[in-house]
Amino acid sequence: MSRLDQNEDSLVQRIARVFAREQADDHSTLKVEMGDDAALFAPRRGYETILTCDWFLEGTHFLRDKHPADAVGWKCLARAVSDIAAMGGQPRCFLLSLALPQAYTGPWLDKFLRGLRRAARKYCCFLAGGDTARRKEILINVTVVGEVREGQAVLRSGARPGDVIFVSGRLGEAELGLRLLRSAKAVANKRIAAVKKHLYPEPRLALGRWLADECLANAMMDLSDGLSSDLPRLCAASGVGASIEEAKLPIVPTAANKRTQRFDGLQLALDGGDDYELLFAVPREKVARIPRSFRGLLLTKIGEITRGRAILRKDRNNRKLELVAGGWDPFRKKS
Amino acid sequence: MSRLDQNEDSLVQRIARVFAREQADDHSTLKVEMGDDAALFAPRRGYETILTCDWFLEGTHFLRDKHPADAVGWKCLARAVSDIAAMGGQPRCFLLSLALPQAYTGPWLDKFLRGLRRAARKYCCFLAGGDTARRKEILINVTVVGEVREGQAVLRSGARPGDVIFVSGRLGEAELGLRLLRSAKAVANKRIAAVKKHLYPEPRLALGRWLADECLANAMMDLSDGLSSDLPRLCAASGVGASIEEAKLPIVPTAANKRTQRFDGLQLALDGGDDYELLFAVPREKVARIPRSFRGLLLTKIGEITRGRAILRKDRNNRKLELVAGGWDPFRKKS
Repeated sequence: MSRLDQNEDSLVQRIARVFAREQADDHSTLKVEMGDDAALFAPRRGYETILTCDWFLEGTHFLRDKHPADAVGWKCLARAVSDIAAMGGQPRCFLLSLALPQAYTGPWLDKFLRGLRRAARKYCCFLAGGDTARRKEILINVTVVGEVREGQAVLRSGARPGDVIFVSGRLGEAELGLRLLRSAKAVANKRIAAVKKHLYPEPRLALGRWLADECLANAMMDLSDGLSSDLPRLCAASGVGASIEEAKLPIVPTAANKRTQRFDGLQLALDGGDDYELLFAVPREKVARIPRSFRGLLLTKIGEITRGRAILRKDRNNRKLELVAGGWDPFRKKS
Repeated sequence: MSRLDQNEDSLVQRIARVFAREQADDHSTLKVEMGDDAALFAPRRGYETILTCDWFLEGTHFLRDKHPADAVGWKCLARAVSDIAAMGGQPRCFLLSLALPQAYTGPWLDKFLRGLRRAARKYCCFLAGGDTARRKEILINVTVVGEVREGQAVLRSGARPGDVIFVSGRLGEAELGLRLLRSAKAVANKRIAAVKKHLYPEPRLALGRWLADECLANAMMDLSDGLSSDLPRLCAASGVGASIEEAKLPIVPTAANKRTQRFDGLQLALDGGDDYELLFAVPREKVARIPRSFRGLLLTKIGEITRGRAILRKDRNNRKLELVAGGWDPFRKKS
């Protein structure tokens, strides 16, 4: 494709073409082709619509020279889909806003779109529309539209004192992956589990939907900024406190491996972002129904919801310490 | 509010507070408070959902030192709402993605939110959620969710040969406003009609809805990039050509005024962006039902849809010239 063709219309058409084949089968969801003023979406009767949007900005959320283009494509959608998982819903379609430097409208864009399409296929989330612009930096914003049966969405605000706090998967693994990625001289090895988790996170859709369908969780959210930042948010929304036990956290074993032994697994688990695991509060009488693993995904009790507003962590010596937010917050760091 | 409080949570809370009062009355639309993982939206039975998103980026779509903060707030929402108008729909709620430099989280943000709220109230479009980030430049992305009765959306793709082409309002007025704004030494006078139209565009919701309700338009879109760019898009989507007459275009009178006499009204009307007027194709047998003005808004026949793919403009000497896209396209300009 020549440079002259790289105007906005042809960019939109190119993006639409990449997604065209699978979308032809999905007339029930999307009623208009890409390129109209807006997308038309047919909501299913008996369902509510879930709406979420996420920035994915070069320099802030990813690094041009460290993150492969297909991982940028995958992750910008996967992390927004994770918000749908956290409500117990399922994604239906998404809008892509993309601003690119001219030099990135060639092979980089192709790879980006391949990663994006792979995630769209995996999560049955179709491209419905978007907006493009030319810009010196790569700027991405993704809006995902999902759905959940009426009244069945799991919010952050439903946790009650006595509820048992669970998390899925291992905490801090994606942060470990980011550190390995940043310290790699060239491109990091994608086969290292932690690097893979950082580059290609997997939103926990099946788990979220099962918890919602079975009414097992009083409150739920996804862990995007780290447990020490996100647990206080769930507690604030519910008007409760929490107490977690460090010894119970499903941390990543870092000590055994030469490459990772300089990292503190506990600190990664408390403050590491980008895990996209689910944090959920289960009423005591339902705890027995939560298995140790769900379709191969570890589920771990890490503490309980308490009265009051204090958020505490019990260390290995049984001392109760305040949990201090050390997670990722773009407005806490200097830009 | 102190600088220390300016982290992401408090920014979200501040935005939510500004919009809290009116939203308390809208439980039928929005079921979750701001700050959960995602928003929950209850679609109305018998309606389809319209989805649209728009970049509004400093330097590309507005200038930090020329555009007042409240106009940035108004316009970022109004232009996305215009896409809903162009389908014949009505807006219901929106998501705001906002990236700001630290220094803009004070008075600038307050004014921005006031302008945004004014538009949200006027168009009955409620804040449902969003995302924030810290950034050196002001980056905005707005997703608007609207609705339209099932099967009643007016698309770009329905124009048929013989249809008469109409536009609302005056074309090129917002572009004139932008030029006055850019040439003003200090802040431009907002009372000048053209400047006002550029800063505070009014999406043509009532007109779009009326045309859809009465099934008067075969095709419709909003004019965001200028007639010479947008008419070819409507024609391409419909697989038709068009012929318009320069003499009929509702241009802005520039000659009478010393400040504006250096601008060519015709060129502004053909290539000027940001008007957010509606362009629509009316089947011949329904043309008599289109009034000269709709609630004070001028409606003008400017030409007709033709067979083939040629898009022509007849000049005042009755010569037929090709209409060449001269409108605004971020991927045509060099950045």
